[in-house]
Amino acid sequence: MPPAPVDHESRREDVSQAVWRVLAAKGFGGLTLRAVATEMNVSTGLLMHYFPTKRALVAHALDVLERSSAERPRRPRPQDGLATVRAMLLDLLPIGEDNAARNRVWVGSWDQALADEGLRAGQGERYARMRAALRPHLEAARDLGELPADADPDRLAATAVAFAHGLVLQALFDPQCFPEETQTAMVDAFVGTLGG
Amino acid sequence: MPPAPVDHESRREDVSQAVWRVLAAKGFGGLTLRAVATEMNVSTGLLMHYFPTKRALVAHALDVLERSSAERPRRPRPQDGLATVRAMLLDLLPIGEDNAARNRVWVGSWDQALADEGLRAGQGERYARMRAALRPHLEAARDLGELPADADPDRLAATAVAFAHGLVLQALFDPQCFPEETQTAMVDAFVGTLGG
Repeated sequence: MPPAPVDHESRREDVSQAVWRVLAAKGFGGLTLRAVATEMNVSTGLLMHYFPTKRALVAHALDVLERSSAERPRRPRPQDGLATVRAMLLDLLPIGEDNAARNRVWVGSWDQALADEGLRAGQGERYARMRAALRPHLEAARDLGELPADADPDRLAATAVAFAHGLVLQALFDPQCFPEETQTAMVDAFVGTLGG
Repeated sequence: MPPAPVDHESRREDVSQAVWRVLAAKGFGGLTLRAVATEMNVSTGLLMHYFPTKRALVAHALDVLERSSAERPRRPRPQDGLATVRAMLLDLLPIGEDNAARNRVWVGSWDQALADEGLRAGQGERYARMRAALRPHLEAARDLGELPADADPDRLAATAVAFAHGLVLQALFDPQCFPEETQTAMVDAFVGTLGG
């Protein structure tokens, strides 16, 4: 018999936290009903009331990841133009433990995403949203004279997202080589060259 | 009884090709003994002579991936400096079906790599090798006057690898938005800004 509805919400929150801990430690490859059940100290059978299939569990994990990303603390955006572009790029990087864990889980989600047309399109749209979020600030930078008058905000937005996510990868795989100061200096230098 | 040694090498090559087809279609999350056996039309039991564990299968898959990457066709490197940096960056991108498939499998390997200290360090070293391969050409570009005299080849190599791999991701997830012409134009513009 499934648990009563009143238990359901708080149990679901427990499940979400357990899913997150499994993902952070083992990645999507280690995300199984058994691993989450062990993490929660409950039976796999109980968990199957919530996630009848592996795919349902993965879908929930992606929801948890989206929510964690949407709720992450962000740097202030005090002004328009390149200063805001800089802040937005820094917010994408694995600076600090929470941001490293979140990025690690995102990277881990891509194996499955590339093998599933719906998930692939979803990640493609996430990238499109990142570019769209940067674009107005690049336009403002151009209008403020921080960028050349013929700057192409669409291309620069794609280049900035590329730079930031490629830096995410190098920093995740070699954190000692990319401490916070190095990541920040690279962003500063990159934003500096946009104006060239 | 295990197969005779003389069969072993050619069977191993068949296995490698089947592993590659499974990875390209389903990613590392779909790489199981059963999937490879089905792809080869043999029993899972036969395959277990070659790969007694899942980890052995994954290790073999990573070898196949390294070999495929090492053997990929590359653009000519006709001269030193930024022209060579451009050719090297283009060689990293998912331009053409083989390069897209190989990049797709690399990206898929990262979930497991981030959860396994040895694999993580291995991927960190791959990035270090990419930076080290670019560095002499960035130094040459500086000495040729293509880059400012105070250019920092280490930082620029890390930035170039970041840009290229972040473009790999956007292009894999949204190939329609990043056809070959767009990827090439982005590389040309990026290499152009290095000199600024």
